[in-house]
Amino acid sequence: MNTAKLYSSYKTKMQKIADVKYASAVLQWDQETYLPPKGNDFRGQQIATLSEIAHQQFTDKKMGDLLEKLSSREDLTAAEKRNIALSNEDYKRNVKLSAAFVRQLSETVNQSYHAWAKARKENSFDNFEQPLNKLIQLKRQEADMLGYEHHPYNALMNDYDKGLTVSTVDSLFNELKARLLNLLDFLKNKISVDHSFLAQEFNKDEQWKFGLELLKRIGFDFEAGRQDISLHPFTTNFSSKDVRVTTRIDEHDFGNMTWSCLHEGGHALYEQGLPADQYGLPLGEYCSLSIHESQSRLWENCIGRGLPFWQHNFKLLTNSFPNQFKNINIEKFHKGINRVSPSLIRTEADELTYHFHVMIRYEIEKMLIEGSIQTKDIPACWNEQYQKYLGIKVPDDNRGCLQDIHWSHGSFGYFATYSLGSLYAAQLYSTIENQHPTLSEDLANGKINTIQGWLQKEIYCNGRYYSSEELCKKATGDTLQSSYFIDYATKKFAEIYG
Amino acid sequence: MNTAKLYSSYKTKMQKIADVKYASAVLQWDQETYLPPKGNDFRGQQIATLSEIAHQQFTDKKMGDLLEKLSSREDLTAAEKRNIALSNEDYKRNVKLSAAFVRQLSETVNQSYHAWAKARKENSFDNFEQPLNKLIQLKRQEADMLGYEHHPYNALMNDYDKGLTVSTVDSLFNELKARLLNLLDFLKNKISVDHSFLAQEFNKDEQWKFGLELLKRIGFDFEAGRQDISLHPFTTNFSSKDVRVTTRIDEHDFGNMTWSCLHEGGHALYEQGLPADQYGLPLGEYCSLSIHESQSRLWENCIGRGLPFWQHNFKLLTNSFPNQFKNINIEKFHKGINRVSPSLIRTEADELTYHFHVMIRYEIEKMLIEGSIQTKDIPACWNEQYQKYLGIKVPDDNRGCLQDIHWSHGSFGYFATYSLGSLYAAQLYSTIENQHPTLSEDLANGKINTIQGWLQKEIYCNGRYYSSEELCKKATGDTLQSSYFIDYATKKFAEIYG
Repeated sequence: MNTAKLYSSYKTKMQKIADVKYASAVLQWDQETYLPPKGNDFRGQQIATLSEIAHQQFTDKKMGDLLEKLSSREDLTAAEKRNIALSNEDYKRNVKLSAAFVRQLSETVNQSYHAWAKARKENSFDNFEQPLNKLIQLKRQEADMLGYEHHPYNALMNDYDKGLTVSTVDSLFNELKARLLNLLDFLKNKISVDHSFLAQEFNKDEQWKFGLELLKRIGFDFEAGRQDISLHPFTTNFSSKDVRVTTRIDEHDFGNMTWSCLHEGGHALYEQGLPADQYGLPLGEYCSLSIHESQSRLWENCIGRGLPFWQHNFKLLTNSFPNQFKNINIEKFHKGINRVSPSLIRTEADELTYHFHVMIRYEIEKMLIEGSIQTKDIPACWNEQYQKYLGIKVPDDNRGCLQDIHWSHGSFGYFATYSLGSLYAAQLYSTIENQHPTLSEDLANGKINTIQGWLQKEIYCNGRYYSSEELCKKATGDTLQSSYFIDYATKKFAEIYG
Repeated sequence: MNTAKLYSSYKTKMQKIADVKYASAVLQWDQETYLPPKGNDFRGQQIATLSEIAHQQFTDKKMGDLLEKLSSREDLTAAEKRNIALSNEDYKRNVKLSAAFVRQLSETVNQSYHAWAKARKENSFDNFEQPLNKLIQLKRQEADMLGYEHHPYNALMNDYDKGLTVSTVDSLFNELKARLLNLLDFLKNKISVDHSFLAQEFNKDEQWKFGLELLKRIGFDFEAGRQDISLHPFTTNFSSKDVRVTTRIDEHDFGNMTWSCLHEGGHALYEQGLPADQYGLPLGEYCSLSIHESQSRLWENCIGRGLPFWQHNFKLLTNSFPNQFKNINIEKFHKGINRVSPSLIRTEADELTYHFHVMIRYEIEKMLIEGSIQTKDIPACWNEQYQKYLGIKVPDDNRGCLQDIHWSHGSFGYFATYSLGSLYAAQLYSTIENQHPTLSEDLANGKINTIQGWLQKEIYCNGRYYSSEELCKKATGDTLQSSYFIDYATKKFAEIYG
């Protein structure tokens, strides 16, 4: 068969598999936004069946044969070759997991997700322990099935950032930890920053409108996406033309929704910017979760906690909440939203202590997967580490080890990408600033084209063409370094803390 | 293999197919409630892929073999035997349609749905004609593939009410038509009824709350379902534990939302009442669309436009809209909501003229499928019939042949079930009244158990065990007769019109 026909057959197959995967994503989105409670059990089954079908179709021997045939064809474009190479890698990885295993994993995730939601209601880890343990044992099995060098956790991290290893992360984290502890120590003796104005009462509807307007202003296309409410904010997509973000609104905490909108908005801009003509193919997908996270942290922090951004948006803020910000000027606001202080909740942490939240989870996961601690040890281990690194006492499980949804979803190997994302974000932002000296000025004037154009060209349009490392090198001229983040943070917080 | 194992294998297969079908239903629900506009095209593909998979899995030869083996097993319960018999019928029907044809149909439906939505915006049938014509040609092909006796339209009606034929419907409709024309003629010379109070301004949020409360009062379980907004109200379900209704709200028309809530609520109560332990099997499904419609019309009309129901709910009404109903007492309200007057829009029609809306569509569909008129003839034919039967001039396509979503969905053969549903509803209601002389009193006291209990026992719990005809005979002691409806209507409207 000629190459064009073979490739077209590959494309059709891949797009149908994507249809099933995206359908499953719709069901999951619905589960976390609108599903009535009694619908949970059948919904779990439905999602498991779709996972099973997508897995079966992708790991079908016919797919393997097709990919093998196409691998040796020279008359493909570079993009086509890259799609085939990536699909081949994915195929080889996926055939290691049986359809029955994938289904069992999906069903166990459903049980553990509901156990987690219930445990949160009861503010007690106890009832989550058994379902979580079952899931962890499956993830350990998965690591064995997938195979790994040096550490089983490498096999799992690979799912989120291909090629990422414990040794890379350990070395980045060790350097980061030392330099962050220094920086925090330096800030500790400085003036205290007031952020109490964020804890006034903020009407829910007004917050909702404000969040939508922020999303619009950073370029989120509401014709190709929407925002809804969920317990835990997230971004999902069912094509680059249908990207959904969620948020939550706390009437007594202005920061909760505002920076979650910018965070998820950053993820969403990436998804909306992926090439639609590569739907279902690797080049239509994001590079890695680390790079995905770089996009959310870039908008949430580098931009969304920066002075230029608020120079443009402060008027919107004071118009939306005139009473709450009556006596707050932009400088005071900018300082307040950047207050550094050890706290209990990861998603509400400042930019510096955030990394410790991630490192603690990363260490716990590594130990769970290698088997050096047991599921039942999680709360004690968690609380001890929070005391050690952040100097705070965890009062209960909801504000401790039950706070994140990830483990209930079986997302082990994910957390490190959050810190790496921040490091990538700082490195990208520094590059954009160097290439576009007017960046701050543009942001202060509400001109987002400068940054959007750069991201579209350097990041979005590439899909999975490059690995995280390659993309970083190509876009910034350097491999990932923690120094960009440390420089960015030192400069920013030295200014704020005087 | 022993029978228990075979049956269990059948059940597992059927449930997985149901998972895929319900997943597709979630995607369709989302399409009509929350989908951002640019997501349309990929969504169409996704739904088509799921239809194709469900069809492929159900028509797989292994399924046929399994059903054949199980058909000869004597050691099955009566319920199990019925499931196998019904699945066998479905299988034999489905294998007549190729997977490619099913996919083509699904994709064409998606195009024609969007063309319809666009045509409605432009208030012009012209741009809908071509996509609709393509769909009609496919439906004609489908009728040929399925096979039929006497009339190709029989093959299509069969999808909605197994065994229903043109000759049955023609004879019921001819009788109904004659008797309705008499009744309408009689009412024409009577006093006029005022319903202008329904056309005041009614706040959207208040209407929304009122509708939710009505749903709660008729027994809709919000733990196993929800209501949302869509262009065209509908009910869908993803198991009997997750049943979704939609409504629309017109600030200047109180009736629009109120009776749509009761109508869809009636459908939803049926779905919520189906046996959950039969998920994915015929006995977990509704009997037929005619019986489904009997449930919506029962709640919308027999109950929801009756005096007893409002004796209980009038206080809620006047509390929700104190200004609008200041000078309206319950008798005036009851008369107004039952005003008989020929009108343009089917879903807003009174109980009597409603049947003409249905008969007109039925006649047009029959002609389209037999090929005696062309798609382009629809507007002229439609307008002529509205003049003939209802004596009114259709001012534009939106208030004419573009008003219903059904054709854009390829639902040819569906409309007759609306009138049959009303006839069934009157016959069921008359039976319940005979068996429970306190029915009116109970409804006036807000006690819905009487009617709910009867429906649960006689209708809901049976699933597809009986055909429409059998179920009607069993529940009411008689085959379907138009006389129950005529008697009900004569009594009701004679009282209202004095």
